[in-house]
Parts: sequence; C-alpha cells; structure tokens
Amino acid sequence: MYIETIFSPALYPFYNTVNSIVVVVDIFRATTSICTAFHHRIKSVRTVADIEEARLWKSKGYLVAAERNVQRVDFADFGNSPFEFTEEKVKGKELIFTTTNGTQAIDIAQDADQILIGAFSNLEAISEYCTAQQKDITILCAGWNNKVCIEDTLFAGSLSEKLLETGKFEFHSDSVKTSLDLWDIAKTDLFSYIRQTEHYGRLVKNNLQDSVNYCLTPNTAPIVPIKKRTTEIFIL
Amino acid sequence: MYIETIFSPALYPFYNTVNSIVVVVDIFRATTSICTAFHHRIKSVRTVADIEEARLWKSKGYLVAAERNVQRVDFADFGNSPFEFTEEKVKGKELIFTTTNGTQAIDIAQDADQILIGAFSNLEAISEYCTAQQKDITILCAGWNNKVCIEDTLFAGSLSEKLLETGKFEFHSDSVKTSLDLWDIAKTDLFSYIRQTEHYGRLVKNNLQDSVNYCLTPNTAPIVPIKKRTTEIFIL
Repeated sequence: MYIETIFSPALYPFYNTVNSIVVVVDIFRATTSICTAFHHRIKSVRTVADIEEARLWKSKGYLVAAERNVQRVDFADFGNSPFEFTEEKVKGKELIFTTTNGTQAIDIAQDADQILIGAFSNLEAISEYCTAQQKDITILCAGWNNKVCIEDTLFAGSLSEKLLETGKFEFHSDSVKTSLDLWDIAKTDLFSYIRQTEHYGRLVKNNLQDSVNYCLTPNTAPIVPIKKRTTEIFIL
Repeated sequence: MYIETIFSPALYPFYNTVNSIVVVVDIFRATTSICTAFHHRIKSVRTVADIEEARLWKSKGYLVAAERNVQRVDFADFGNSPFEFTEEKVKGKELIFTTTNGTQAIDIAQDADQILIGAFSNLEAISEYCTAQQKDITILCAGWNNKVCIEDTLFAGSLSEKLLETGKFEFHSDSVKTSLDLWDIAKTDLFSYIRQTEHYGRLVKNNLQDSVNYCLTPNTAPIVPIKKRTTEIFIL
C-alpha cells in the first residue's frame, strides 16, 4: 500500500485519492479537539464548512463549536480549544463543528474511500486502524488558509513513520519524504521546534497557547473518528 | 525585507506577493535551461504556457523549446535539457519556451513586482541581485503538475540561506522554515538526496538523467534573467 501526503486542501485536486483512505489533520486545533471530544464520549460530530449552517443547527438546539481566526464565534457553545470538550459537557451529545481550516479540509475530501480524523492525540490508534484496512493512505494537512503549516506536516511525518515501520506501506512522494525528514529533525524536541512556527506565534498573540503541549502529545485519545457516509457525521 | 516560499503554483493565490520580487524555480529543468541559454548569450526568451501558442511562434520563424511530460514536443527545435542550449545554437537568438511546469508558474506570477528566473545555476547571482533590490522576495516552486517537488524546495532553502546570511532578510513562514531545514539535511550530499525523489525517478525512466548533476551545480551561469513588462520577454 502507498502513502501520500497533501500539504494544503488547495492541492487536493492534483493528487489521486481514489480508493484511498484520507486522514485529515489540523493539529492546532480542530482535529485534536474532535479526538478529545470523542475520547470524552461525545456521540457524534457533524463538520460544516460554513458559519451560517452552524448557526442554523444551533437554532435547532444542537451544541455548536465554531471558530474563525483562532477565536470562538459569538453564538457558539465552544471555540476550538481541546480543553473545552470535557466529558461533563460533551458525553452523549451531538456536536456541530466548524473551524477556519480543519472542516474545510474535511469538506474537500468527499471522494475518498474513508475520511478519518487524525492528530497526535490518536496517532497509535489511527496507525493501527490504517494498517488493518489494507488500503492506500492519504494524509491531508488542513494548513492555514490553504498555506502550508509545519505542525500538520510533522504529524504527517510521524504517521508515515509509523505506517512504514509496519513494513506494509511504501511511498514515491516528495511530500511524504519532506514530512518524514522534517519529523526526523523535530521529533527529538518537538515543543522547541514548534515554537519557531507561524501558527504558534498566532496562538501566542491571541493568548491561546495553553493547549499547544497537549496538541503535540501522542495517544491521549486512543480512538478513531470515522465519517459515516449515510449520515455525514463522524462517529467512532 | 521578508522571504516567502510557495511550494506549488496552485498555492500562489493564497500568499501575499504584492510588491514582492518573485523568483520562479523549476530545477528539473526549465529554469536551469533558461539560465544556460542566457549564459550562452541568447538574446531573449518568451515563455508561453500553451503548446498551440508555441506552434504559432514556430510558424513565424522563431526558435521554439517545447516540452511536455519530460519529452520534447514534435515540432520544437529544443526539448528541455540544458545541454541543448549551446552557444552555437542560441547566441543572439530569440527563443519561445514552453514546459510542463516552469512556464505555467511564470504565467501565474503576473502581479509580482518583478519576475526572475532562478536555479542552482545562478544561485549566487540571483542572491546578490535580490539583496540589492531592497524588496521582499517570494520563491515560487514550479513543482510537478502542481504537486510539491523536493528539488525546487531545496533550491528555495538554498537561496533563503544565502539571503538570510546577508542579515537583511527575515521570515515568518512555515514553508521557508521547511525549505531551510530540508536544505540543511540535503546539502552535505545533494546528489544522493535527490536520487530519492520523484522527479529523479521520472527522468531516469525516460533516460533523461544526464543533466541532473549539472542542474544541481551552483553558479554555472552567473546571470539573472528578468521579465521585461513592456515586451513580456525575459532578458538579462
């Protein structure tokens, strides 16, 4: 099986993803938050790309998480920090989720064989799941407004490393090679490396850096959110 | 002044390039070939994105270089190997040039303050020129059919390193950071590193790897091709 990595949703149309499982990653912070919510026993997450659609669901009584440019949208119950999704608040609930980048990336991957939510939080779980599927894997980095983001690239490198270790995967892709080599540099001191990135600066500027270490910690949420075709929601 | 790097022409619209000098790079092999042609005293190069436009210029008596998927197009005088552009064949001539990726990248950068042709061939010359301009620099990687290519990323890292060494540039961009770190890994043995990439495999498959070492050798063509707005051609 082959691994591919796509550095931005805007590049998705140029890669062949037919019959591939797509792992969407937005480390800061959408996919980390979704993993946390499922770990805390949320029932389902419906991702919507549009703020107005999220508002509509809110008016129907659903819980809504909505973020734009790192800030919570006024009408929403949650922003985009994983720390907001406590068991007390989310257990058994159905959540509507829209963020600047993560949910747009999920939206573009409609042709994939399966769409999964990936983050350092569920690294081991998603690696095991992907290996068992016997299919090609595409890691889709959400980026920031379609620009390349290092934290998503590093997750791609980290997951690719795990998949390659199984001996069941190979790659012929320059973006996979890039992510593996970058991960190799960063992994010995991931927190220091991340402090040199654009998005870390953006979070600090908005005093939202409290969850950075959590977002980079592997295996805090050993679950795999999978998009269910029939209902268009993520479940475990 | 700031440095930015864009990994694919498809990402160009998402980066702010107003008032920026754009250095277009397609190491294998368009921008290397254009540098070589100018080093061998070609008079001008007009890049066209479309094969049919190139054919029209050919019918008007111009020399045409045309490549698609690494192969020379049937009606063209040249393909895309830098070794074809000898002084004997190009000195004093006006050339029309169209390739799979390089000329499309040039085409998309129309809003830039200046458009330059960059390659390892003119690394030092382009670094000195850019430093003297006192403007922001954007390095636009041509990639392969809008996919990310390591050889272009490495050139971006190499040029960024040179610009940063002057002390006059800075960056806040994850793609610049990525290119610098990748260049740092690759530069000690660039030829071995490149052998692990997608495009090297593509060239070998078509028995076109003869120019690879030349394409990676710095400063073989100490000139800077600049796009002239009024005539839409590149000159020195």
